[in-house]
Amino acid sequence: MGYSVLDTQAINTIRLLAVDATFKCNSGHPGAPMGMAPVAHVLFNKIMNYNPKNSKWINRDRFVLSNGHGCMLQYALLHLAGYKLSMEDIKAFRTVGSLTPGHPESHETDGVEVTTGPLGQGFASAVGLAIAQQHLAGVYNKPGFNIFDNYTYIFLGDGCMMEGIASEAASLAGHLKLGNIIAIYDDNGISIDGDVKCAFTEDVNKRFEAYGWHTITVGDGDNDLEGMEAAIKACQEVKDKPSLIKLRTTIGFGSLLQGTPGVHGNALKENDIKQIKVKFGFNPEESFVVPQAVYDLYNCRAAEGASKEKEWNQLFEKYSQSFKTEAIEIKRRANGDLPENWEKCLPTYSPSDSAVATRKLSEIVLQSIYKTIPELIGGSADLTGSNLTRWKDAVDFQPPSSGIGDWTGRYIRYGVREHAMGAIMNGLASYGLIIPFGGTFLNFVSYAAGAVRIGALSHIRNIWVATHDSIGLGEDGPTHQPIEVLPHFRALPNCMVWRPADGNETSAAYYVAITSKNTPSILALSRQNLPQLENSTIGNAIKGGYTIFEDQRADVTLVSTGSEVSICIDAVKYLNDNHCIKARVVSMPCFEVFDSQPYDYRLSVLPDGIPILSVEPSSTLGWERYSHEQFGLNRFGASGAYKDIYKKFEFTPQGISNRAVATINFWKGVPNIRSPLRRAFEQIM
Amino acid sequence: MGYSVLDTQAINTIRLLAVDATFKCNSGHPGAPMGMAPVAHVLFNKIMNYNPKNSKWINRDRFVLSNGHGCMLQYALLHLAGYKLSMEDIKAFRTVGSLTPGHPESHETDGVEVTTGPLGQGFASAVGLAIAQQHLAGVYNKPGFNIFDNYTYIFLGDGCMMEGIASEAASLAGHLKLGNIIAIYDDNGISIDGDVKCAFTEDVNKRFEAYGWHTITVGDGDNDLEGMEAAIKACQEVKDKPSLIKLRTTIGFGSLLQGTPGVHGNALKENDIKQIKVKFGFNPEESFVVPQAVYDLYNCRAAEGASKEKEWNQLFEKYSQSFKTEAIEIKRRANGDLPENWEKCLPTYSPSDSAVATRKLSEIVLQSIYKTIPELIGGSADLTGSNLTRWKDAVDFQPPSSGIGDWTGRYIRYGVREHAMGAIMNGLASYGLIIPFGGTFLNFVSYAAGAVRIGALSHIRNIWVATHDSIGLGEDGPTHQPIEVLPHFRALPNCMVWRPADGNETSAAYYVAITSKNTPSILALSRQNLPQLENSTIGNAIKGGYTIFEDQRADVTLVSTGSEVSICIDAVKYLNDNHCIKARVVSMPCFEVFDSQPYDYRLSVLPDGIPILSVEPSSTLGWERYSHEQFGLNRFGASGAYKDIYKKFEFTPQGISNRAVATINFWKGVPNIRSPLRRAFEQIM
Repeated sequence: MGYSVLDTQAINTIRLLAVDATFKCNSGHPGAPMGMAPVAHVLFNKIMNYNPKNSKWINRDRFVLSNGHGCMLQYALLHLAGYKLSMEDIKAFRTVGSLTPGHPESHETDGVEVTTGPLGQGFASAVGLAIAQQHLAGVYNKPGFNIFDNYTYIFLGDGCMMEGIASEAASLAGHLKLGNIIAIYDDNGISIDGDVKCAFTEDVNKRFEAYGWHTITVGDGDNDLEGMEAAIKACQEVKDKPSLIKLRTTIGFGSLLQGTPGVHGNALKENDIKQIKVKFGFNPEESFVVPQAVYDLYNCRAAEGASKEKEWNQLFEKYSQSFKTEAIEIKRRANGDLPENWEKCLPTYSPSDSAVATRKLSEIVLQSIYKTIPELIGGSADLTGSNLTRWKDAVDFQPPSSGIGDWTGRYIRYGVREHAMGAIMNGLASYGLIIPFGGTFLNFVSYAAGAVRIGALSHIRNIWVATHDSIGLGEDGPTHQPIEVLPHFRALPNCMVWRPADGNETSAAYYVAITSKNTPSILALSRQNLPQLENSTIGNAIKGGYTIFEDQRADVTLVSTGSEVSICIDAVKYLNDNHCIKARVVSMPCFEVFDSQPYDYRLSVLPDGIPILSVEPSSTLGWERYSHEQFGLNRFGASGAYKDIYKKFEFTPQGISNRAVATINFWKGVPNIRSPLRRAFEQIM
Repeated sequence: MGYSVLDTQAINTIRLLAVDATFKCNSGHPGAPMGMAPVAHVLFNKIMNYNPKNSKWINRDRFVLSNGHGCMLQYALLHLAGYKLSMEDIKAFRTVGSLTPGHPESHETDGVEVTTGPLGQGFASAVGLAIAQQHLAGVYNKPGFNIFDNYTYIFLGDGCMMEGIASEAASLAGHLKLGNIIAIYDDNGISIDGDVKCAFTEDVNKRFEAYGWHTITVGDGDNDLEGMEAAIKACQEVKDKPSLIKLRTTIGFGSLLQGTPGVHGNALKENDIKQIKVKFGFNPEESFVVPQAVYDLYNCRAAEGASKEKEWNQLFEKYSQSFKTEAIEIKRRANGDLPENWEKCLPTYSPSDSAVATRKLSEIVLQSIYKTIPELIGGSADLTGSNLTRWKDAVDFQPPSSGIGDWTGRYIRYGVREHAMGAIMNGLASYGLIIPFGGTFLNFVSYAAGAVRIGALSHIRNIWVATHDSIGLGEDGPTHQPIEVLPHFRALPNCMVWRPADGNETSAAYYVAITSKNTPSILALSRQNLPQLENSTIGNAIKGGYTIFEDQRADVTLVSTGSEVSICIDAVKYLNDNHCIKARVVSMPCFEVFDSQPYDYRLSVLPDGIPILSVEPSSTLGWERYSHEQFGLNRFGASGAYKDIYKKFEFTPQGISNRAVATINFWKGVPNIRSPLRRAFEQIM
């Protein structure tokens, strides 16, 4: 302990960087940084272990700013601490091309662990970071070798507290007894609409205690540095519960408008800034000032961090001698390398193999690869028996005291918490050394849309095992049958949506999902059984789209995905027998991957000359990109046996054939039919 | 009080209807109905006021089965009570075209108040039903005239408890002190993954007390009918807090597998069913049996309900004499009629009016119509100052004891709870007499995707005021800039996505949203100012798409929405001046409404003969339906001043012109260019 005026100066430096940066770009959020600067300083200067010269040190403490709009706080700290963030970067806050975007983005800025801003995401991702630490400690730590023992620190505000995703994650963290989480709740009493009393009057500590958390209140977050440090250290000692510190702060501390919504979401006025600088002992005519003593203070802390890492490296060196296999595996996983030849474990199929639902085929993949890929950690949002996400003999990730699992467990019982599951997957992936997967019905991936988006934006690898992927789920009916879900996530940049047609395509989907280190994947999987198709191979399917049935004399191309590919193949025979029409069939399990193939290849799959009809029992939106005509379902589904529903909506060889005939007739008059792949100009990517 | 063997027989009848119906269709969820039949019987036979012969009686008590998978419980009760649900309908459970789909759908089945199944939705919608009652009571009740005094009863299970949406709604309901809610939590200890102890170990009552709820525990939900009735009545007496009854039940009561996940989500085995029937004193060889005494018991209750309604009608008749204006207004609102000539309040603009952001234009609409349309009730998810959803002098909907509003208030402070806001809007609309609107950033409508979907499926009218609709929001950056959101909701059936270009289009969007009684609307509104356009009129814009700049000699059609329409118009001049190219411009504020126009009209807007280029800084997915070439943004945005971002991504007259030239050149060789509206066959709708 022991704080001096230098600490106050450092705190005010942080505050003023936030004030100056938001003033310069005339936007952003000065209030939260000004209010939380004291606790941030305590955390970064007295508590957290980190080495700014190696932001990827795997046992660093993790920091998550869940109230990401306060990012100037984080940028100021990263700058002072010596991460790759210069004063020029700070000055470029919120300008195009800068390293300091309006909300923290992990793939943009050194030292940002997870992307935050959309409220609640950071908090829930942080639970993922904490699960990762707890799991890796369970697997790799040995007596005397605490290789993984970092904490996860979270800042969050009232907004995060109100979001359902945070509730889900908090409940799960309490259940899991994650003693490595220390969350600091900025209880400043203000949200955008004014006093939080207008919408948020719950007893937050009591709620968190109900979840199984340890809670502490610190009354003076503006000044009581000793109290904050003591509270954090007390939380560190609580090993069997996550901790919440409710910290009363003054939003916009120092401003004439402190304690009001006026400081939340816009730059302060010039005269206000001047009086703050005077009050804080800074020159009111200067901006972006960091006293050398403050740099020195942080340099000193950074040096301590570097030496902590050095100690850890020495520990790891010794560990490597005693636990060679483990050490090699840790290094491999930390590097992001997959085990050699892991892909040879992927199951393959031939047409004589029996018909199997792709959700079941997904289970077979997991069963086949889990031993080889120890970094595969997953679970389900309380749909294990439906998603088939659990390999035989899986151990549950649970606190050992529960008696139903332990920390080495690789199967996470997420509960009915899809949104938190998504964010936790983002956190697991962001920790490193882990490839997360999570199961739910495809329709309920929508509940987690916010988290899926953050994963895509953050260039994170995770895998959604999204079963019950269409009207083919049958009786559960329209409330559960996705219609808009495929186009929704196909429209999301950097997100792969797979809808495999059989066993080989399912293996291919996993192959691409696992080897795509910077892209999340959604695997849309059938409830109903599907036959193993001729010409479906992993090699074909990993191109995202390929000709599964070729006929050089074809009058029409049918392009389809998943469960309808085999019906299209049946339609080929129907068309031939009933209409003397020849058709070829393209299987297109993944738009995004197909789009990344060479143009000539794509054009060979969807060639000029004959019309193309798409077939998928889902919204047709977007299929116009690959086809001239679309057979889909631009309405909600129906409840009933799946075969009856398919009949009702005519997803049968006959129904497809009728539309193929209409397509051919409609395009008959057009000379030189052009493939829809031909475009006038390149898209901005 | 006083229960007899007849009550037990009624309860077992309900259980067996669930058993027989799930067995017959070999799917569904017998466990929850068997466990909750006792409390359901108590509620429907001793507590709730309802008239099965008039399921729309406006002061009926509302019942919501939030654990909608247990819908055979609800269907059995509706059948016994005498709603329009025959035994044939029960036998048709989960078959195509039946009135008894796999989860309850309010627009399908008489007596179902809100659509449920996706977990948590029902609970949160029910909070909306309760807000509606409280508000209407505040506005219309007079001393001696409790015109609106119904309760809202909710059943929910562990799944709903775990969902974030329910947490959000519970926190808000506690804050609002909604004493008219009585929620009964089916604490059966089982979820799909098995014992809830594997994922859900929080102290539920304590959590709800932290939210400000009154809680009671009833230990024997299988047998203690008196205890359940007493608990419900005790809750009725608590007028200043919502109530939660934690009811311990045995899932699948009576089955050999009772108390296990084996009874949750699939039909019971034949031998199990037989032993249950024997145990319950029913003939094991018969199915779908309702003893006449049970019908009689429910007929008796139905008669009591009918006489309750009669009493209420008499009360309302007397009320009408003393409070004529109010009574006429209640009738009008209950009928779903809008005030005469309300649309004359909509603001109109001419090109000489100044440039204004469409979010601001939306505020002007609300300001202009709120007095005329008292049924317009709305709020924001803590973004009031950004969404501009609050008219001047609005009163907040708050408990009077808060001192910051009262029950007559029409402005709801939702807090940062988008998903609950969406479901609450569904509940408000379902109560009747209310047109709800809710504000958030367009990007965060995605957080509420589950609720938006339920609104669309349920044929509900509500209005999302979704501001900050594109990269045009500027500095907040990629975390807040929607890319996939427009295609997502455009792909959702029965959902209107509006992106107006100026004042008249904004008024048009409100006009269609308010007059579309069975469809939710999302109004995507700009943060930045937009000019008032020539040829933009309400009459044009309510067609969803129209020619805003015509040129018979045009070489290309530009089709666009919202903030880019005016840039396209500038591009016309640029093309003419720099390339001697003529262009015409189509404004397409709403795909869904445009699609509903006559074919000839649509073809006149997007005609044959010249190529069409779409312009929208969002995912291009789906624009292929209306254009030959697409200029969009199939990547995430950027943080910076919006003009810089527009330049970066070339959404400028020059950038558009370049692509228009490329489009014209590319299509030059094609004779008789066909409008993309021309299709080979009709879509299934």
